[in-house]
Amino acid sequence: MTKQLNVTIWNEHRHEHKNPKVAEIYPNGIHGAIGEGLESEFHVRYATLDMPEHGLTEEVLNATDVLLWWGHMAHNEVEETIVERVYQRVLQGMGLIVLHSGHFSKIFKKLMGTGCDLKWREANDKERLWVVSPGHPIAEGIGEYIELEQEEMYGEHFDIPEPDELVFVSWFTGGEVFRSGCCYHRGMGKVFYFRPGHETYPTYYNEQVRRVIYNAVNWAKPSTRSYPAYGNAKPLEKLN
Amino acid sequence: MTKQLNVTIWNEHRHEHKNPKVAEIYPNGIHGAIGEGLESEFHVRYATLDMPEHGLTEEVLNATDVLLWWGHMAHNEVEETIVERVYQRVLQGMGLIVLHSGHFSKIFKKLMGTGCDLKWREANDKERLWVVSPGHPIAEGIGEYIELEQEEMYGEHFDIPEPDELVFVSWFTGGEVFRSGCCYHRGMGKVFYFRPGHETYPTYYNEQVRRVIYNAVNWAKPSTRSYPAYGNAKPLEKLN
Amino acid sequence: MTKQLNVTIWNEHRHEHKNPKVAEIYPNGIHGAIGEGLESEFHVRYATLDMPEHGLTEEVLNATDVLLWWGHMAHNEVEETIVERVYQRVLQGMGLIVLHSGHFSKIFKKLMGTGCDLKWREANDKERLWVVSPGHPIAEGIGEYIELEQEEMYGEHFDIPEPDELVFVSWFTGGEVFRSGCCYHRGMGKVFYFRPGHETYPTYYNEQVRRVIYNAVNWAKPSTRSYPAYGNAKPLEKLN
Amino acid sequence: MTKQLNVTIWNEHRHEHKNPKVAEIYPNGIHGAIGEGLESEFHVRYATLDMPEHGLTEEVLNATDVLLWWGHMAHNEVEETIVERVYQRVLQGMGLIVLHSGHFSKIFKKLMGTGCDLKWREANDKERLWVVSPGHPIAEGIGEYIELEQEEMYGEHFDIPEPDELVFVSWFTGGEVFRSGCCYHRGMGKVFYFRPGHETYPTYYNEQVRRVIYNAVNWAKPSTRSYPAYGNAKPLEKLN
Repeated sequence: MTKQLNVTIWNEHRHEHKNPKVAEIYPNGIHGAIGEGLESEFHVRYATLDMPEHGLTEEVLNATDVLLWWGHMAHNEVEETIVERVYQRVLQGMGLIVLHSGHFSKIFKKLMGTGCDLKWREANDKERLWVVSPGHPIAEGIGEYIELEQEEMYGEHFDIPEPDELVFVSWFTGGEVFRSGCCYHRGMGKVFYFRPGHETYPTYYNEQVRRVIYNAVNWAKPSTRSYPAYGNAKPLEKLN
Repeated sequence: MTKQLNVTIWNEHRHEHKNPKVAEIYPNGIHGAIGEGLESEFHVRYATLDMPEHGLTEEVLNATDVLLWWGHMAHNEVEETIVERVYQRVLQGMGLIVLHSGHFSKIFKKLMGTGCDLKWREANDKERLWVVSPGHPIAEGIGEYIELEQEEMYGEHFDIPEPDELVFVSWFTGGEVFRSGCCYHRGMGKVFYFRPGHETYPTYYNEQVRRVIYNAVNWAKPSTRSYPAYGNAKPLEKLN
Repeated sequence: MTKQLNVTIWNEHRHEHKNPKVAEIYPNGIHGAIGEGLESEFHVRYATLDMPEHGLTEEVLNATDVLLWWGHMAHNEVEETIVERVYQRVLQGMGLIVLHSGHFSKIFKKLMGTGCDLKWREANDKERLWVVSPGHPIAEGIGEYIELEQEEMYGEHFDIPEPDELVFVSWFTGGEVFRSGCCYHRGMGKVFYFRPGHETYPTYYNEQVRRVIYNAVNWAKPSTRSYPAYGNAKPLEKLN
Repeated sequence: MTKQLNVTIWNEHRHEHKNPKVAEIYPNGIHGAIGEGLESEFHVRYATLDMPEHGLTEEVLNATDVLLWWGHMAHNEVEETIVERVYQRVLQGMGLIVLHSGHFSKIFKKLMGTGCDLKWREANDKERLWVVSPGHPIAEGIGEYIELEQEEMYGEHFDIPEPDELVFVSWFTGGEVFRSGCCYHRGMGKVFYFRPGHETYPTYYNEQVRRVIYNAVNWAKPSTRSYPAYGNAKPLEKLN
């Protein structure tokens, strides 16, 4: 199989420099670990916050079929012009996969139209992500649930619009649940939010997590249709 | 306030006769306990499996705005003609609230178009029903979650169509989650599935559970519009 | 019945001053005509673009249960701080009904997360708004369809997220269709978009259009639940 | 590309024998014309009402990835055991594409849980199927709309559950609209309803119609996941 999709993995890439524990788990960055799981199947490129234009130039985005987004401590440093650029590309068809703490990124909030807030706890909860849509392409190759021995807890209420398709619901030891795999359509583009991936756990080395991300890239691939024609329509026709 | 809605509570009413534990918890039947929580607000009537026509005559159903359904061990004894009668009434606008083991009733399966199967365990799990749709009228008066100290566990995958609106998601001690408050539209009618209510627990005395059922009755009340006109349409008009 | 809901009708109120035809049709403003249809049932107040803070002070919004929004030629003059204020109130539960050309307002685009563009034509198309959700409370009192002899045409593709509930679909003489009655949930709030109402037609005097807006106000009324608790959750509990 | 999907086209195949006009348009049957558009890409087999077991033996269905269904005048002659067999296969993952008058087939009504009725008129209406979900895989290769010079009219209200994804909405000359491309998930299976295809018009030779059916087959292909485990769950675990 030839590699047909161009994937860009965007990572804030700050925790890896500030927290030795994170650096130890992710010596090549969170983006590096995610990319390791995708490189055999897709053309993968990387972009980080501290690159010029955060690595998301017009050229890069125009050559991107699906963009992955991991951010946490520096959401506010992402420039509005770049957010707007990504937003327009999604409406035009680029897929977007938002990971874990990316729920609070500017781009996700802009696409959702809600606050995207939630409950959280860092206490080594066990997480089980149950498949609630068993025939969904994003659940291909996944068992009844994915179990992660230790993760940060995210709990409801998760302030998002009702997902167009809900694929996973998480259970946590401490008594919480969370809609952890959520599909949306925005313009021509597809958006998938996937919960796991706290920086202090080796989540992105987990084979099942990697499979979900791989599936999501395929699901989110752009349509080949041209962008709809908006604005002043043709004059009134006689059709009857 | 005058009582404006006519509610019929249907109960299989078999466990109460066969299991002394159930008889002790529900001396007036499961239907009696549910009705106790509704009688101050609605006109309530009762119907059970062993009544003629299961208590669901044309006359009763035509005078019913919202029907509640609890059944478990005798789903197969419900006659097809009665199932069809209830089905037609729902399509014409009668609300239907299906409780707990009613997930496997003929009427629920017929309205869903799926198998409606699930996982279960009787082991005194604790259940937390989290509100995931905080502005929904069925969640009025309910806190972040309803906690039930002991309940039967129901777990995903729950073989239902994706709910039109998902109001509650349950957490269970044993590691499972469940979509436990699910809204559907069928024809002119509204259908709400609500999970809790195993016969060996006093769930229907719980004030929060009663509040949800009360809210659901109000949500499911029939429209006053007339049934749509189907079939051969008017001749082609000149409209342009 | 006491008037229980506080409705604020926001109108840009510019066309009425610039176009004599509009002034003739709506001598009391578009907001005045809309309000005429609601005043017997609700506490109605009015706000317009040229009032201080566009008439939408904290005090006014905090006392508003449901806000109606009509704007067209001056969307860009609406200040960001007011848009943000309305947005936060919707997430906290205030209902919002967006009318006609309000599809391109800042507040609607912010809540949708899409471009909200569409096709349009000013050519006296006839419009038929067909009810596709016959049991929906917003369709109460409405026949199979609402016919408007002359309206501006709006056609697909309409760049919105898939509606949570689709109530009306419009037919136009010139060969177009449009999703013209769309329900959304955002945070604790409910949002309804309703298509008709071009400024050069007397649409807001139409009894069926007024009935839909009346129904929508009732549907969009705020929940009494308190705003969800977000952020750092309780410590890990022993629940098993 | 190797042909990877097994498609079975089921046709009632009665109109072709009874109405010379239909026989003239579809000399190889409606199924033949549909199959002509699919044979280069998929393994296609055919089944008709008058074959033993309607051509839908266990063997055939077990070897079918996606089933297409065209029926009209003889819905009642389809045996319940075959309907049940197809139903179970859909829940287990087989895709199902229901065409035109198949809206009234036993299998579609059983999967929908509604009456599936609609308005109709045979008067050579022009139909335009507008794409309302521009990034959807079923709309690949399709322009803004598909125009069919002459078709039977189907109008709202169409008595179906709200589609999980709505891809097409039809406009008809006579003033009606119709949700004409509707996606559903049932169990592990995917169901697509596609409106056009009255037996007296050459609709299934239309290249755009054929493209939609081709896309729908790809969209509806089965998951490789195993069927969910239902029933009595594992004993209560200590997870905390």
